[in-house]
Amino acid sequence: MSITLAIDAMGGDSAPHIVFEGLKFLKAKLVDVQFLVFGHRGSCAPYLDGSFLGPNDQFIDCREIITGDTEPRAAIREFKDSSMRRAIEAVSTGAADGVVSSGNTGAYMVLSKLILKTLPGITRPAITTLLPTADGKGVTMLDLGANVDVSAEVLVQFCVMGQAFSRCVQGIENPSCALLNIGSEALKGTATLKEAQNIILSTACVENFKGYVEGDGIFTRICDVVVTDGFTGNVALKTAEGTAKLCATVLREEVNRNLLRKIQALFLRPVFESFKKRLDPRRFNGAQFLGLQGVAVKSHGGTDAYGFSCAVNVAADLVRNKVNDRILKEIAALQLSLEHSKALSISFD
Amino acid sequence: MSITLAIDAMGGDSAPHIVFEGLKFLKAKLVDVQFLVFGHRGSCAPYLDGSFLGPNDQFIDCREIITGDTEPRAAIREFKDSSMRRAIEAVSTGAADGVVSSGNTGAYMVLSKLILKTLPGITRPAITTLLPTADGKGVTMLDLGANVDVSAEVLVQFCVMGQAFSRCVQGIENPSCALLNIGSEALKGTATLKEAQNIILSTACVENFKGYVEGDGIFTRICDVVVTDGFTGNVALKTAEGTAKLCATVLREEVNRNLLRKIQALFLRPVFESFKKRLDPRRFNGAQFLGLQGVAVKSHGGTDAYGFSCAVNVAADLVRNKVNDRILKEIAALQLSLEHSKALSISFD
Repeated sequence: MSITLAIDAMGGDSAPHIVFEGLKFLKAKLVDVQFLVFGHRGSCAPYLDGSFLGPNDQFIDCREIITGDTEPRAAIREFKDSSMRRAIEAVSTGAADGVVSSGNTGAYMVLSKLILKTLPGITRPAITTLLPTADGKGVTMLDLGANVDVSAEVLVQFCVMGQAFSRCVQGIENPSCALLNIGSEALKGTATLKEAQNIILSTACVENFKGYVEGDGIFTRICDVVVTDGFTGNVALKTAEGTAKLCATVLREEVNRNLLRKIQALFLRPVFESFKKRLDPRRFNGAQFLGLQGVAVKSHGGTDAYGFSCAVNVAADLVRNKVNDRILKEIAALQLSLEHSKALSISFD
Repeated sequence: MSITLAIDAMGGDSAPHIVFEGLKFLKAKLVDVQFLVFGHRGSCAPYLDGSFLGPNDQFIDCREIITGDTEPRAAIREFKDSSMRRAIEAVSTGAADGVVSSGNTGAYMVLSKLILKTLPGITRPAITTLLPTADGKGVTMLDLGANVDVSAEVLVQFCVMGQAFSRCVQGIENPSCALLNIGSEALKGTATLKEAQNIILSTACVENFKGYVEGDGIFTRICDVVVTDGFTGNVALKTAEGTAKLCATVLREEVNRNLLRKIQALFLRPVFESFKKRLDPRRFNGAQFLGLQGVAVKSHGGTDAYGFSCAVNVAADLVRNKVNDRILKEIAALQLSLEHSKALSISFD
């Protein structure tokens, strides 16, 4: 099977340079993938000579660019010939199987939702990504900011979608799943969480369900998939980033406190390098808007070529492993079991 | 001024040993503080010979112990002669100015609220603590788990209470304050957050207000006080703990990967030690149930003698600097400005 990915070359802090460098890096590795690259020809000219793109890749010239300052509303009404919009449209027309952009998150989210539309049976798409764990396998977490308020049924859908993501990207056969809460006891948490847990336990609609997980359990592989609302998920994600930065800052300050320490630290370079590599956020770059009719992956705006290539890999994995077919199948089963349980509760009333 | 603190000797994983060791450590340091220690005489006998307690300290024998398994409901109805309950009662009767316990959080919270009662003008007490920052000053954060759902007005009260805490414990004259959100723009976040920000901006009832802060800004001293609901706060706190543990685990694994690295790491011991010291959770131990008529500090159940002594220090700081007088004064001003703004909005209707 050959996969076609649409690439927005103009998104992110160092576009289009890191985008093309990332594609060059992937050329020899992703042999089953061809790229449709959407960009502004003037800016992209240095990269179109064949050393960055393969023979089957195509470049499509777009006159407009959605920048970090573009309001999502403006992105919808104007910018019809922007690289971001046209890359997303390539998925809706079937020219591409998925799209990757490092551009303006708000604009990318509303445009993807508008153009690709939500999958049948899914109430809300969710931002989904992998986070690092000590064993290197990572943990799937959603929603990371798309939905501030969610209902219990939406949380249950997130469980099913997150498991499909985990199967496709982590290659885990039967991923376990838990709801993020402030305690592991059944009585803890919001009414929405308790209702979601009740639905799951009474219908058995989520396989391998592990109940509640607390914030400190996200990274310990208590479960493969952590589900929460977009507000809590975004706070948790950014708090984790902030904590990791705090640890790195303090360690760096202590190493650089005097010359002796600096010299001694040189000997431990392999330690610091493996440490950095294992927790490297670039390796976990690539957040998917899960629940849309098409694969739309967001790469971090500040990442480099290697980070961008990781996001492209996530998109390729999701397409190759047919994430949406899996979600549709699971959601159909979920709806059946919900209806079944409702019918049962009516007949017992 | 002499301060009296009631100490529950029976709470926590290593009670009463670490409690008495902690008090011994403080004996020469907290010269203005005397202790009323509540405990089971049989368990505490090895520590009552005068080497742990000062001449003005007292031991009070209690027959019951609230353990980690005691249900909060049972703690209210039974356990009338427990060390935890009697230590809290010492504050309500005026025998002590504050209480410190490492015991069962749920039981401690409901008993404190029941016995000490909420301060007039405060809708909900909040769990408040310091978190580490790179510059060592720390950041005050609340609520860390007492209230799953809060209204906008409660969040505004939290701002005022958090600032009083920061003045007393961090010694910051005019602490700045921000609401935890998923973006710094005015449009981001939940309806409750937007309403809280509107109240603050329209009434100017919170001095030195900095708007919204994101999860990665908690540790960077963007503000001195971070305010959020107890659900989000608890998830953020535990996610930060989990991330710090993840970093420590990966670093340890890399150092211990082979003998050469282990030997090289010996030379960097001072670096690792200062790193650990600066982010040492024991130094930030001591969470206050802010908003009660009395100082009630919760020490982490798993901490050691040094950690327990830090929690006692927090209680002493709060009593010494009259945290509740400050809160009462600020809350009165808050209510005045809220009424003023309501009257204004009515007169303009």
